[in-house]
Amino acid sequence: MEQLQYQEGRTEIGQLGKVALIDRLTADTGCQGDDAAVLGKGKKRTLVTVQTLVEGVDFDMMYTPLKHLGYKSVAVAISNIAAMNGAPRHALVSLAVSNRYSVEALDELYAGVRLCCDRYNVSLIGGDTRSTRAGMVLTVTAIGDADEDKIAYRSGAKHNDLICVSGDLGSAYAGLLVLEREKVTYQANPNFQPDLDGFDYVLERFLKPEPRMDIVKKLAEKEVVPTSMTDVSEGLADSLLHLGKASGYGCEVYEERLPIDYQCSRVCSEMSKNMLPVSCALNGGRDYELLFTVDQKDYEKIKTMEGIHIIGYVTEKGMPSVMVTPQNTTIELRAQGFTKQ
Amino acid sequence: MEQLQYQEGRTEIGQLGKVALIDRLTADTGCQGDDAAVLGKGKKRTLVTVQTLVEGVDFDMMYTPLKHLGYKSVAVAISNIAAMNGAPRHALVSLAVSNRYSVEALDELYAGVRLCCDRYNVSLIGGDTRSTRAGMVLTVTAIGDADEDKIAYRSGAKHNDLICVSGDLGSAYAGLLVLEREKVTYQANPNFQPDLDGFDYVLERFLKPEPRMDIVKKLAEKEVVPTSMTDVSEGLADSLLHLGKASGYGCEVYEERLPIDYQCSRVCSEMSKNMLPVSCALNGGRDYELLFTVDQKDYEKIKTMEGIHIIGYVTEKGMPSVMVTPQNTTIELRAQGFTKQ
Repeated sequence: MEQLQYQEGRTEIGQLGKVALIDRLTADTGCQGDDAAVLGKGKKRTLVTVQTLVEGVDFDMMYTPLKHLGYKSVAVAISNIAAMNGAPRHALVSLAVSNRYSVEALDELYAGVRLCCDRYNVSLIGGDTRSTRAGMVLTVTAIGDADEDKIAYRSGAKHNDLICVSGDLGSAYAGLLVLEREKVTYQANPNFQPDLDGFDYVLERFLKPEPRMDIVKKLAEKEVVPTSMTDVSEGLADSLLHLGKASGYGCEVYEERLPIDYQCSRVCSEMSKNMLPVSCALNGGRDYELLFTVDQKDYEKIKTMEGIHIIGYVTEKGMPSVMVTPQNTTIELRAQGFTKQ
Repeated sequence: MEQLQYQEGRTEIGQLGKVALIDRLTADTGCQGDDAAVLGKGKKRTLVTVQTLVEGVDFDMMYTPLKHLGYKSVAVAISNIAAMNGAPRHALVSLAVSNRYSVEALDELYAGVRLCCDRYNVSLIGGDTRSTRAGMVLTVTAIGDADEDKIAYRSGAKHNDLICVSGDLGSAYAGLLVLEREKVTYQANPNFQPDLDGFDYVLERFLKPEPRMDIVKKLAEKEVVPTSMTDVSEGLADSLLHLGKASGYGCEVYEERLPIDYQCSRVCSEMSKNMLPVSCALNGGRDYELLFTVDQKDYEKIKTMEGIHIIGYVTEKGMPSVMVTPQNTTIELRAQGFTKQ
């Protein structure tokens, strides 16, 4: 009766990247591969997206306050609406949870959900609640809208466009590294008091990311419409490859231009000699910053905008996406596997 | 660091019903407690709903073909759109899955997702894929629409309305009972060949339910707009209590009027002397039939409609919801707990 045991030609999920897996599963459907689906006709379009967080993979209950988790579950869904240059309006929360959690614990979780909804003017309009045998899975559907001519798809980048990123990269992953280190020490000695001093910024970046609606607003104020956009949820390399693949053009970014916070660098130097801040930025993920391209004509507007960094430009059709090091070495960017944690 | 260990005043999830839990978590938000949220202004409204299926709770991989599971995950979400008297248009599928599953297994799952989408003219527009440590959680967001004056809310029932239900009740739960029985026998003796002969109807009802879009269409053809509606996902008792609570009126249904298939009765008689078909209908759940109320003026239209049964009527304000037995005993209906499986 167990149909999984006898398959011929078995392909492991890890053999495909996450993107290749989704592409395969949704081939010939209406899925466009953007951060959110675009619905409707006319000037105002509806944006819909769904984001799932899984206990033991996306969060660890050892160090995740439930209120932060509720906040983050909504924030990462809103980030997908921001990545389309849209405004979030509504959210639905589906919670699959074991009876290990008390009602008071779920109150905390929902306090975070509401806080994020309130902060971004999102109305919580529905959801589902299911029990699980173990663990928690949180799925948030976010619905937003955008003017048809302002929507930023992944596919719109063109030759010579500037590549920009908001905020800084790698900090969320650095925060995760700190929490994992403290967890291991705590498990070895439960009397141990976690030492989180001086890491407040990277911890907040991991535990309570903010969708960059402020950047969407600034771009609108300056009348800059990105030619393409996505958010940085799986690392800069992954996001650049998305934009490159969708548009057909190559991307070239400069290592020394990547915005990296000093706390991220400090975590790397404390952790291991093999851990480089640039690796956190490229492959760490969970930053939920916006990566976008703009036409060269918008250079003057962009260069003075606070919180936005120009990190490279769009090269020619069919070229690979690469990073140029300070030593002028060109490194081709590669996708991370689905199983990365 | 483990914040769940030290809570005072802990309330177990099982102490609240599922409905009470959702009510508590979403108090003071825009959640109306209908099967789907209603968005927009003007004549045509947008309907949005989300439904989650959890491995080990909603399905067991021992006896659930993945294609059926994919189909069911979309079907149950569409059922919520049907329950608002609307038409489904789009779906997003979020899949949280462990690496135990091969890519080919997920192909099977998505073949079912697409089959259901195709059958109900739904376009698959997006989704998310996450890994889990163990188990699978499937969340489907369905988006549909309906004319503003045709939407059936849970709250619209009024005194003397007729209570109607589509199809039959209890069969899906009977199918689950058969599968669980065969599983136990198989686990005791792996050489055992499951005996599913003569249970094809109840098995299909559990493994591959159909959202009753045909009923929505028939009602529209006869120009009958239900005064209230919901689907029967957690059992007839639960659904009646929803309609009663939302409207403020009581419901009275007659046991001998409840539509129950002979295969359901056969399963009950084979299983145990304590298992009554009426219990499957009231509390078994998973039928995904439509429960609705209509004005008395529509009686002539309704009574000749194939696949619809008039099972009772709406009583007065503030009355409890009850079932009357053939012996004329009145039994008050009660909600099931969240932990029911």
